[in-house]
Amino acid sequence: MKIKLNKLLTKNKALFLAYDQGLEHGPTDFNQNNVDPNSIIEIAKKGKFNGIIFQKGLAEKYQKEIRASKVPLILKLNGNTNLSKGEPISPQICSVEEAIKLGASAVGYTIYIGSKHENEMLSEFGKIEEEAHKVGLPVIVWIYPRGKSVKSKSKKELMVRAARTGLEIGADIIKIRLSGTQKDLIWAVKSAGKTRIVIAGGTKQNEKEFL
Amino acid sequence: MKIKLNKLLTKNKALFLAYDQGLEHGPTDFNQNNVDPNSIIEIAKKGKFNGIIFQKGLAEKYQKEIRASKVPLILKLNGNTNLSKGEPISPQICSVEEAIKLGASAVGYTIYIGSKHENEMLSEFGKIEEEAHKVGLPVIVWIYPRGKSVKSKSKKELMVRAARTGLEIGADIIKIRLSGTQKDLIWAVKSAGKTRIVIAGGTKQNEKEFL
Amino acid sequence: MKIKLNKLLTKNKALFLAYDQGLEHGPTDFNQNNVDPNSIIEIAKKGKFNGIIFQKGLAEKYQKEIRASKVPLILKLNGNTNLSKGEPISPQICSVEEAIKLGASAVGYTIYIGSKHENEMLSEFGKIEEEAHKVGLPVIVWIYPRGKSVKSKSKKELMVRAARTGLEIGADIIKIRLSGTQKDLIWAVKSAGKTRIVIAGGTKQNEKEFL
Amino acid sequence: MKIKLNKLLTKNKALFLAYDQGLEHGPTDFNQNNVDPNSIIEIAKKGKFNGIIFQKGLAEKYQKEIRASKVPLILKLNGNTNLSKGEPISPQICSVEEAIKLGASAVGYTIYIGSKHENEMLSEFGKIEEEAHKVGLPVIVWIYPRGKSVKSKSKKELMVRAARTGLEIGADIIKIRLSGTQKDLIWAVKSAGKTRIVIAGGTKQNEKEFL
Amino acid sequence: MKIKLNKLLTKNKALFLAYDQGLEHGPTDFNQNNVDPNSIIEIAKKGKFNGIIFQKGLAEKYQKEIRASKVPLILKLNGNTNLSKGEPISPQICSVEEAIKLGASAVGYTIYIGSKHENEMLSEFGKIEEEAHKVGLPVIVWIYPRGKSVKSKSKKELMVRAARTGLEIGADIIKIRLSGTQKDLIWAVKSAGKTRIVIAGGTKQNEKEFL
Repeated sequence: MKIKLNKLLTKNKALFLAYDQGLEHGPTDFNQNNVDPNSIIEIAKKGKFNGIIFQKGLAEKYQKEIRASKVPLILKLNGNTNLSKGEPISPQICSVEEAIKLGASAVGYTIYIGSKHENEMLSEFGKIEEEAHKVGLPVIVWIYPRGKSVKSKSKKELMVRAARTGLEIGADIIKIRLSGTQKDLIWAVKSAGKTRIVIAGGTKQNEKEFL
Repeated sequence: MKIKLNKLLTKNKALFLAYDQGLEHGPTDFNQNNVDPNSIIEIAKKGKFNGIIFQKGLAEKYQKEIRASKVPLILKLNGNTNLSKGEPISPQICSVEEAIKLGASAVGYTIYIGSKHENEMLSEFGKIEEEAHKVGLPVIVWIYPRGKSVKSKSKKELMVRAARTGLEIGADIIKIRLSGTQKDLIWAVKSAGKTRIVIAGGTKQNEKEFL
Repeated sequence: MKIKLNKLLTKNKALFLAYDQGLEHGPTDFNQNNVDPNSIIEIAKKGKFNGIIFQKGLAEKYQKEIRASKVPLILKLNGNTNLSKGEPISPQICSVEEAIKLGASAVGYTIYIGSKHENEMLSEFGKIEEEAHKVGLPVIVWIYPRGKSVKSKSKKELMVRAARTGLEIGADIIKIRLSGTQKDLIWAVKSAGKTRIVIAGGTKQNEKEFL
Repeated sequence: MKIKLNKLLTKNKALFLAYDQGLEHGPTDFNQNNVDPNSIIEIAKKGKFNGIIFQKGLAEKYQKEIRASKVPLILKLNGNTNLSKGEPISPQICSVEEAIKLGASAVGYTIYIGSKHENEMLSEFGKIEEEAHKVGLPVIVWIYPRGKSVKSKSKKELMVRAARTGLEIGADIIKIRLSGTQKDLIWAVKSAGKTRIVIAGGTKQNEKEFL
Repeated sequence: MKIKLNKLLTKNKALFLAYDQGLEHGPTDFNQNNVDPNSIIEIAKKGKFNGIIFQKGLAEKYQKEIRASKVPLILKLNGNTNLSKGEPISPQICSVEEAIKLGASAVGYTIYIGSKHENEMLSEFGKIEEEAHKVGLPVIVWIYPRGKSVKSKSKKELMVRAARTGLEIGADIIKIRLSGTQKDLIWAVKSAGKTRIVIAGGTKQNEKEFL
């Protein structure tokens, strides 16, 4: 089935507003204003963002406001708090079926490659990708190398690996952290093949990043 | 589907009578009188409580008495004893389907964030929330930071995180332990957004706590 | 559905013949005579026992003899050998459905509270209780505090906790080991509420124990 | 349903040809001749064996030859290599359904009692026994005490325990290793009750062993 | 059901182009040209390869190009990155059903025998083999001895074991690494019985390897 990416792109560029850090970090990153999901929906609407990234709790409680804003909803399917100090794992807490009911235009999932629990996340993602693509729902993956095993690796190498991993496992869009030079980023984009790359923390992506 | 919160609120306030500690602590907290669930049902009825919190064993054996009292039943779906000394985990022992059969007006679940087993509880809760909300059943979550990883954190920070976690994962009501100042509580309430907060150990909540 | 306890009681008393130790201990407890399950069925029949407790292997191979004896069959659903020295766990080896096919009048399950694997047994028991009670089949639980964590606890406290745990998780009958004084036992019985108590190793129980 | 043991017995005796060691040991036990499964099928046919024990790979690839030989097929459902040095575990790799499709007259399963993973094997066996007996398929169990916990036990005690374990969990035939005197074996046979015993490494069993 | 091996063989020989290392190693093995899956599809087409081995991400994104090339697709069902340093495990990320939808002519799976997680991979493979063979889909297995336990073993012994393991568990084709002499290879081929062997890193195989 054809993956419905159109809603997430404007002239082949994408600008997403991520607002799923409240589960991982708690509200420490927020101020009196942006602690309110409504303020974020407002920003996303005014900034003509191509997507707003929410955990299922926000997607459900602010459903009416999200639909009214017409900003596509990207439902983050897994999550964890950063309180636990062991090898990182982020379990699925929302099903693809529930995401669709909540009006999602895409689903997202984080994989900590290099973690002792990498296999559990790869396996879980595999089922999500299959279910989502059956109905044409785009899948975005956050690939963050983490855990004891990756400490000795260069950030540049890890960025490029993340890009390739996303292609290999069937993501439509990969969100990576930018490291290294412009040349490194071009290599990452090339390694990702037909899978598109979004840079974490960046602003509107230029076309190169989507080649 | 609309979540049926009305039964659990009186003028937007809620007063719940928790009586699920018998599994965790054994009967050490009880005396000759309140060891009998009937005495608790009586108190809940006379005090016009908005809910009585039971494990499934009590809900089943005292079903007739609970229905007669007209106090809404909140079925606690997971539980554990405090005998085991490892990283805390509280497994699901009652399904949403069974809770509904037993007449529950809401279901409850405890998550020990920061525990090595946090991921298992988040994952289990995710399925419970989905199943309960499909039929409009409210979900209450007890979020208690626990385990080695949280020892260095301030109680105030943990209270605020618990509040936000509840919102992010889709709870309708969050029960937290009170720590810090009135200002901290207001911040917690704000962090919880549209999810309502109940204070553990407290009495009738004022309206601020439900904003 | 109403739990069918009648077959297991004579004037509100119960006398069960447990013969499931062959899996846990091997045949060391047996002699040339009682190693044969037929001799046990004979004793249960002559002694007008209210139930004979078998693992599924015996229940199946001696099905004809059990039915002929008219002694109600209590099928023990989980079991383990005592060879392994880690934290105790007793896995389910017989389903409720299979127990019913084998003619069981009740099912039994052991939980080692305090064990590192307590959560796995509580979770497994939760599903068994739900499935059995759907068809009115009584559930008996053996609650034995075990594992490193319980070593410092008094036997009396552990007996009382076992009793309360059985009530909280939905057992119809709890089998506990007798410890402490007559007063302690009365407290245990009171803590168990509407769940009935059977004493391990005891003979015909007096009525107090079923209050 | 009646268990179809007739095909596996000749005048109440059984002689099985085990050829499943290729997975556990690799081909080190084989020579240029018996490395070929066809040579084994030929021996089983000429020796009028009551069963030939194969893993599913052999059962499938040599299906035609096995059927032509008319020797009953005993499908070994679990297996592992002996390369890994941790506490032993042998996972199920063939379902009862697949075994039936491959023409099996019985299924077999190995349990390492005393292993840290004993519970996983007991649980898996429990489901196999239920599924096989639903359709009258005999179940053979290999019970080998293994792992750190059993090192201090006498071989004789372990043989007798293995026999009893097989009866308790519902096996129709138990294969044990012979240890101790003729008297010990008689005690093992008696402990196994109506479950029949086959001696590993032995030749045609005499009737005593099947009492 | 008959396994459809014809598409994968030319006069009983097979030459596969493996391009699944991007997940395990990242793009470090690639250059500016072969980082593009299209260049590989081109090589496979021109070289008249009997199969091209892809992870599901590539199989989906380059579906049109693969079908146009007429090179049979071998879908690798499991995979992992080599970043994690514990005992090796490669989880399933693509189902047999999804592989069939993507047009696969065969499915592949890697098992690290000797790893602490060997049992999980054997178990997962067992289900894959059953599902694939139900519809006549060939199953290729990569058997690589790995982990602490195999360090003391000779490469020759491990090669021969890998070959036999593939036969025992039901693979149609086994890919092994070549070690030792021509005689050792002949012994490996003989040990694999009716299962065919492909040498990793080799070129077109001669007929001996398929006897």
